[in-house]
Amino acid sequence: METGASGHWFDDFEIGQRFETDGYTFTESSIIDFALQYDPQYFHLDRERAAGSLYGGLVASGFHTLSVVFRLLVQAQAFGAGNLGGKGMDEVRWQRAVRPGDTLRVFCEVIDLLPSSYPDRGHMRMAFRACNQRNETALTGVLLPILQRRPAGR
Amino acid sequence: METGASGHWFDDFEIGQRFETDGYTFTESSIIDFALQYDPQYFHLDRERAAGSLYGGLVASGFHTLSVVFRLLVQAQAFGAGNLGGKGMDEVRWQRAVRPGDTLRVFCEVIDLLPSSYPDRGHMRMAFRACNQRNETALTGVLLPILQRRPAGR
Repeated sequence: METGASGHWFDDFEIGQRFETDGYTFTESSIIDFALQYDPQYFHLDRERAAGSLYGGLVASGFHTLSVVFRLLVQAQAFGAGNLGGKGMDEVRWQRAVRPGDTLRVFCEVIDLLPSSYPDRGHMRMAFRACNQRNETALTGVLLPILQRRPAGR
Repeated sequence: METGASGHWFDDFEIGQRFETDGYTFTESSIIDFALQYDPQYFHLDRERAAGSLYGGLVASGFHTLSVVFRLLVQAQAFGAGNLGGKGMDEVRWQRAVRPGDTLRVFCEVIDLLPSSYPDRGHMRMAFRACNQRNETALTGVLLPILQRRPAGR
């Protein structure tokens, strides 16, 4: 399995191609800091009250885990050399809580490639699955990046 | 239009109910700080190089705008008194770039309510639209929160 696609343009990807990323360990402080800014609910912020919640303890905001997933994908150069930005995401599912000390790693697969009506770009559908250190799936979804086509002469 | 649903449980929401949130102004430093951690691509980080990109200047990470949308919804108590966490999101679409100085505000609507097989909770589908100060749509999607049902005697 490849770990990235550096130097790849839209034209160089193939349906079925798979990548995996490095891991990232969620600390209690990173979980609380993110939540204070973006998702201030007690099960992300308050260790004492979270212990009595459904989760039995502090868990990371889903927007935190999603942002970390994207960071890991960018760092692995999963979108190649010419990512023009994202159109959106489909079917994002937070399947399992992410707790302090959990390490996530992302596995992804190119599931569709469609040239755009603009001749310089194309649309990809990339399915992703973030797994913890016990290989349990924490988060799945489909990203819709817009990628640059190989420029003439490169 | 209501600005929140404080004190609401799953049973108190109705399909078609609408909320709006306060606004949030994206600064250049907040855009760059978020991107450095979670989405380190040059059009979010490097003012000089971003000027030559498709966007013609720095734009916020889509994960930043999404996280801000959620913060505004939590702050407006859009999920009422008993949010148990999110199941996921569908059809997230970044429709327009968010630039330094842009102010986003979120409009949302309850589009579905389905009691869970667990008697203490129910599933909501909430469509959201984040608009800038010119009332242009920047981001749309559907959130899938899981809400607590009204406890006996409350």
